[in-house]
Amino acid sequence: MNYVKNLRFFFSACLFTMAILFSGVAQAHEEEKKPYVPRKVDIYEGFPDWYKSVFADNVGLKEGSGLFKDHYKPLFMNMYMYPGRHYEPPTRMDHSLFIEKERRDLCIRCHEEINTGAIEDWKTSAHYNPRKTPIIARKTKIIEDSIGKEISVVDCFDCHVDTEKKQIRLPTAGDCSECHARQVTEFASEKNHGRPNHIQTLESNVLVPWYQESYRRGLLAGNAGCDMCHGATDKCDPCHTRHSFSAAEARRPQACMSCHMGPDHPDAESYGESKHGIIYELEEEHYNFDKPLAHVMVGEEYRTPTCQFCHMYQGGGTFTHNFVSKGIWRMGTVPPSNIEYESSLKDYPYGIKIIPPKIDIYSDENLDKRDKWIEMCSNCHSPRFAAGWLTQMDDYMFQANKLTDQAQKVIDDLIADDMLYPSPADRDIYPGGDWLADILPAELLGEGVWNAFKTTGGKIPVIGPILGVYAMFYQGDGNPTHIETSYAKMWFWYKLQGYKGYAHVQQDVMWWWGQSPMLQELGNVQSEARSMRRAAAIEKALAESGNPVSFPAGKGKASAKELDYGAGR
Amino acid sequence: MNYVKNLRFFFSACLFTMAILFSGVAQAHEEEKKPYVPRKVDIYEGFPDWYKSVFADNVGLKEGSGLFKDHYKPLFMNMYMYPGRHYEPPTRMDHSLFIEKERRDLCIRCHEEINTGAIEDWKTSAHYNPRKTPIIARKTKIIEDSIGKEISVVDCFDCHVDTEKKQIRLPTAGDCSECHARQVTEFASEKNHGRPNHIQTLESNVLVPWYQESYRRGLLAGNAGCDMCHGATDKCDPCHTRHSFSAAEARRPQACMSCHMGPDHPDAESYGESKHGIIYELEEEHYNFDKPLAHVMVGEEYRTPTCQFCHMYQGGGTFTHNFVSKGIWRMGTVPPSNIEYESSLKDYPYGIKIIPPKIDIYSDENLDKRDKWIEMCSNCHSPRFAAGWLTQMDDYMFQANKLTDQAQKVIDDLIADDMLYPSPADRDIYPGGDWLADILPAELLGEGVWNAFKTTGGKIPVIGPILGVYAMFYQGDGNPTHIETSYAKMWFWYKLQGYKGYAHVQQDVMWWWGQSPMLQELGNVQSEARSMRRAAAIEKALAESGNPVSFPAGKGKASAKELDYGAGR
Amino acid sequence: MNYVKNLRFFFSACLFTMAILFSGVAQAHEEEKKPYVPRKVDIYEGFPDWYKSVFADNVGLKEGSGLFKDHYKPLFMNMYMYPGRHYEPPTRMDHSLFIEKERRDLCIRCHEEINTGAIEDWKTSAHYNPRKTPIIARKTKIIEDSIGKEISVVDCFDCHVDTEKKQIRLPTAGDCSECHARQVTEFASEKNHGRPNHIQTLESNVLVPWYQESYRRGLLAGNAGCDMCHGATDKCDPCHTRHSFSAAEARRPQACMSCHMGPDHPDAESYGESKHGIIYELEEEHYNFDKPLAHVMVGEEYRTPTCQFCHMYQGGGTFTHNFVSKGIWRMGTVPPSNIEYESSLKDYPYGIKIIPPKIDIYSDENLDKRDKWIEMCSNCHSPRFAAGWLTQMDDYMFQANKLTDQAQKVIDDLIADDMLYPSPADRDIYPGGDWLADILPAELLGEGVWNAFKTTGGKIPVIGPILGVYAMFYQGDGNPTHIETSYAKMWFWYKLQGYKGYAHVQQDVMWWWGQSPMLQELGNVQSEARSMRRAAAIEKALAESGNPVSFPAGKGKASAKELDYGAGR
Repeated sequence: MNYVKNLRFFFSACLFTMAILFSGVAQAHEEEKKPYVPRKVDIYEGFPDWYKSVFADNVGLKEGSGLFKDHYKPLFMNMYMYPGRHYEPPTRMDHSLFIEKERRDLCIRCHEEINTGAIEDWKTSAHYNPRKTPIIARKTKIIEDSIGKEISVVDCFDCHVDTEKKQIRLPTAGDCSECHARQVTEFASEKNHGRPNHIQTLESNVLVPWYQESYRRGLLAGNAGCDMCHGATDKCDPCHTRHSFSAAEARRPQACMSCHMGPDHPDAESYGESKHGIIYELEEEHYNFDKPLAHVMVGEEYRTPTCQFCHMYQGGGTFTHNFVSKGIWRMGTVPPSNIEYESSLKDYPYGIKIIPPKIDIYSDENLDKRDKWIEMCSNCHSPRFAAGWLTQMDDYMFQANKLTDQAQKVIDDLIADDMLYPSPADRDIYPGGDWLADILPAELLGEGVWNAFKTTGGKIPVIGPILGVYAMFYQGDGNPTHIETSYAKMWFWYKLQGYKGYAHVQQDVMWWWGQSPMLQELGNVQSEARSMRRAAAIEKALAESGNPVSFPAGKGKASAKELDYGAGR
Repeated sequence: MNYVKNLRFFFSACLFTMAILFSGVAQAHEEEKKPYVPRKVDIYEGFPDWYKSVFADNVGLKEGSGLFKDHYKPLFMNMYMYPGRHYEPPTRMDHSLFIEKERRDLCIRCHEEINTGAIEDWKTSAHYNPRKTPIIARKTKIIEDSIGKEISVVDCFDCHVDTEKKQIRLPTAGDCSECHARQVTEFASEKNHGRPNHIQTLESNVLVPWYQESYRRGLLAGNAGCDMCHGATDKCDPCHTRHSFSAAEARRPQACMSCHMGPDHPDAESYGESKHGIIYELEEEHYNFDKPLAHVMVGEEYRTPTCQFCHMYQGGGTFTHNFVSKGIWRMGTVPPSNIEYESSLKDYPYGIKIIPPKIDIYSDENLDKRDKWIEMCSNCHSPRFAAGWLTQMDDYMFQANKLTDQAQKVIDDLIADDMLYPSPADRDIYPGGDWLADILPAELLGEGVWNAFKTTGGKIPVIGPILGVYAMFYQGDGNPTHIETSYAKMWFWYKLQGYKGYAHVQQDVMWWWGQSPMLQELGNVQSEARSMRRAAAIEKALAESGNPVSFPAGKGKASAKELDYGAGR
Repeated sequence: MNYVKNLRFFFSACLFTMAILFSGVAQAHEEEKKPYVPRKVDIYEGFPDWYKSVFADNVGLKEGSGLFKDHYKPLFMNMYMYPGRHYEPPTRMDHSLFIEKERRDLCIRCHEEINTGAIEDWKTSAHYNPRKTPIIARKTKIIEDSIGKEISVVDCFDCHVDTEKKQIRLPTAGDCSECHARQVTEFASEKNHGRPNHIQTLESNVLVPWYQESYRRGLLAGNAGCDMCHGATDKCDPCHTRHSFSAAEARRPQACMSCHMGPDHPDAESYGESKHGIIYELEEEHYNFDKPLAHVMVGEEYRTPTCQFCHMYQGGGTFTHNFVSKGIWRMGTVPPSNIEYESSLKDYPYGIKIIPPKIDIYSDENLDKRDKWIEMCSNCHSPRFAAGWLTQMDDYMFQANKLTDQAQKVIDDLIADDMLYPSPADRDIYPGGDWLADILPAELLGEGVWNAFKTTGGKIPVIGPILGVYAMFYQGDGNPTHIETSYAKMWFWYKLQGYKGYAHVQQDVMWWWGQSPMLQELGNVQSEARSMRRAAAIEKALAESGNPVSFPAGKGKASAKELDYGAGR
């Protein structure tokens, strides 16, 4: 019997060895067919030159980013947040000798003393131990094949040294792509789907004139709150935090959270407090984050979906490192073309070409995206359930847009009747209003809007989506007034809270931070408008009785009607 | 010696076998004595017929629920939220053949492909493996005895097929009761303790006319935020989430959270941030959620109490599936009878019979409940400590009600002096005000209120608890104004925040989301009232001087005094 | 070979024994040199006698705490929150016989039945098992050496009995210090660093006259939210929760949370949602909380810092039980001396000696503290990064103070022009305004402020930091008005949110709960001021036309200018 057993073992061993050999051959063949050429991915590839020159060229802290770069100087910390453009190598300590001699050992020797935490963290990483687990070893093998050399360790030198300039660098996504080309290429592909996307998020930061206005008014330090998310897109460590750079960590919902939370995109709150999120919280330790998303067994390894699982899904069972390809309503800030408006929203975007046009929720492209969502949700729910929910979310958004349309009409009418108080002529300009039209030509701003800026020096009333959001970011003397702020909160906070509440199926966010405060703000807009009209009627009665109200000197009250807003408004 | 040992073993074995035999006999006897008859529990048992006909009869999506059912059509998703009334079987795919042939195998064969997550989740459940753990096996045995058949698996067919109608169904609590009769019976017993309770929570959703008003104004999609909690009471899966339906999961505080959070009942927030909740968070993995509550060793297996442990406690060491039997202040929305009021709260509930009368906090029934609370808290604290805290919470609530009384008086006086601006006559009606009195007779609404609705078509000013809450849910033209919204927030948000802060012993919620913003809103109510009086005095002076203020056409200003509000206000 | 092995073992054993002996000798020597005398630490040591008499002398519930103690009676629960001053032994049950006979066994025998949870929790503690782990055994040894007796158990009797008075007591920090002298001494040392500190936090509770005003107005129960943190400083169990009193628990960030959260110090929120906090949440189970902070391996045992790790750090690698020694901006409530002001902030603190003077952020002492912060951050980050962030945080705070200065100027001007509506003369007094100057002499209040209180009986307008915060805590008739509340929120909520957002590097808190709502409140202050000016101008026009506006009787409108505010304003 022993003989038979041994014989069986012998055959098994042979088969196993042969299997390995053949698989090796197969792999070699595949490699010959599709040689994987390592390259440094340019995440801005495809953008015009001027774009790269104002967003991606390194200028240290000497000037800003974007088209309005000359109107502000970046905060010191921006060198760390957006290193591609703003990093300056350390000056207190000259590292050039170590760099020239390639003294990799010295990095650790010093920094282990000074920055123990960073070094210790790196020691837990796949960079320190590229064969830490079978999955990681496999990934390392793929990278080795693609870059054509063996990797025993990825150390400080590999990432933090610009070997050309012989300088310390802070790595950008492009630097990471030298090994992680596929991930960075997929990430960069987000830009092909239009904004918002991670690649272009810096635009929302510095292509809004209130950013520069903050600088002019000495308030830029507060804007670091914006920079930390919006200026951190050319790096991988917002999600794969340094210095462990773990893929497993980045697969967890919390990885998205410190940016994706708050008034305008309460993703963390709405997901976290939904049944999906609560079950994740309860069963977190049973979720398998070591596995690539495509290998996850739904219902077993993930009882509920994560941010990554839904948003990186590309349809047909595939996942890539692109989060935006299924976005229909986007951030929810752009009005849909599918409903009628009563207010000046009718004319949105007022001829302005730098803001997005109304979204057609039912375009072919968007219907395709919807199919992918239904496919995703059908992992657990019936397609009827999934489609029903999506349709209801559309309805919510249409309704929310109608509510803001109502509020906008109230303010439109105030302006038309010259009763917005104080009148635009009596208050500070729109942020950057005195220079905006010098930088953005009439072709981009639209003739009417461009003329209005030029004629009034920026003293124009602005409400509505995108441009009217300034009320959340700027306070000049009398601009915005409280009624405009109330409108902006309705548009930018509560509509978006309700949206994300719906998208992530969290009832409290849907109603109590969504529709309810929208209604309340609408009520406030109505109440304030009535008070303004009441005071104006009183002033009119006084004027007619020969006792006009006289205002303090220097607070002359020019009529809004005297201003030429142009066709854009 | 071996002989003795063996002998000992022999006797032990005999005794053991006999014990089993006798216990078997004993059990059989008990069964004979108390035959457990399985039955489908009607959670609406005891309600009058009209109640069942408007809340529980299945109508699909053809009409609404409740007395006002003809004034709206339900949202599509309500078929899933409140299936007992609104579910419609799938039409895209005819399942009848499978149902007739009882092809249980086919359910899984198809849905494993389409809805993998749901099937995989079910595979982790006690339904898939009814002898998964000793505790579950014991429960299964009890069920088997009660239904008189053996259970090897509970599959899709068992829950999702209406064998009478030969249709796919979405199971309701009644369906679950076929096996889980005790739990559903206890759950249904909540209705014996008055509202609020889980059984009748749909009433708060659809018996408030702002729900139907939302429908009329095309804003119903936002109300799904209400439906998700208020319309999900005839199902078990809000807590025992599908398809694992775990009792252990439902024993965890997070199970309550997606409903029990937010402005009006910040249970999750106040518990979660209290020391009880924080210690639970820190030591979660040491809490034993597999055990039934009555078996939990306090201090050892639960270091601090959970939602379930306190609220399912019935006194005397017993726990049942009833959460409301110890409620004294209820949701905190109804004013107590134990204090004096200055405002129209004196007359609450204004003769209206469909809203609850003032609560006597010190009724015999409520004093009994208090004793049970003290008994519960004394698991860890001294009875003096527990009683002291409860008394202080009462004091807080009395004070909070006095503060809102102050605010209500300010607005009462404005109305009495015809200075609320805009006047009720000049604005949109109270939600549903034009049809309310057609449905609710004078006997229910009270003569005065009924007349007021009839006479004015709903153009009546309404502030105060319950009915005045409309200001959080509706915004017509000029109704409510900001001062009324401010009052409603004081009543419905901040008073209730402070209440739950106190109840769950969380200081930040008590003060900063409770008493502090109440004071701030009171200040706002005062400020706005003064502004209205100031403007009215100015208008009066102008009128007296022969220069009356003229308002835009169509905005005629009828006097509130001209309206007959009836005795109710 | 066996011989050699044995020999080797023999030598090893000898060396080991000798090492133990010598270490024993060394220890004995050290003990002889520095005998550790156990003592009861007086946390108020160093304070003047009057301070102790009004804060620390036990008065039960008969009177209040602090200088204004005669103006209120404490809430019942304060006996548990601040037992040193307010505890009263139980009266329902006479424990004196058990105490006299030292029947330690009886405590447990009864309370195990009544308060099972507390006893079971204690059984998990080091008090029950003083040699539970090697680390705990070592600590016990140190304590035994210091108090000169062996400890087998620390039971109810040891902590809860006042052996002198033969009464049940609730232990204070001083009682804990009988064994834990080092920790309590370090804790008490916080007071050497100025306020805020844990020792003196009761002052912020009862030395603010709105506390007593709440009592006078029958609203004290709400203030329990204040007491729970501010009145819980002479106890150790807010962090080391009873009855396990675990050091490991107190080392976890959540231990600080139930107090350190909310509008004015969103520490929990800002840390919790920062990358530091998120990584802690994700990797919590890998943090080693059993180790004393000084032994923690950064990057390995703590991947990110905790509250305790940063705030207990004293520089030079040492940690003590003192959280405040590195505080520069403190709670962020006191304006810095490093910027220019336009408003009455110029004169802050208006001669008042009981409120802190402006802070010089760049004093030598504060520069030293900064160095320690940089040292701490450099555990992981570069010193340039750390210093850069701290500088930017200073800039944010300077800017935030400038923004509030702008708002204060708007209200200052209203007051100066007698246009704040209602005028201070027409409304309720400043909280406690009628008795404040009787208790606080002119030397403390400053001549001008003292005179203003005396002359007007407290009818003075107060805005600005510290004193103006009353608007968050009190609402009299017309005092504060909404514009003042808006200012106070700007100062006390949003500035501080932004501050903690910056300090803990959380972008959402920085912007959306910090600078953005500050700007919005500033806009509201401007809008309301303009409305007040508009109405005043209308009234002036009417008066000039011979048709003065007449107000309801009893609402006489005295001019703010007629009041003598004194130099302080």
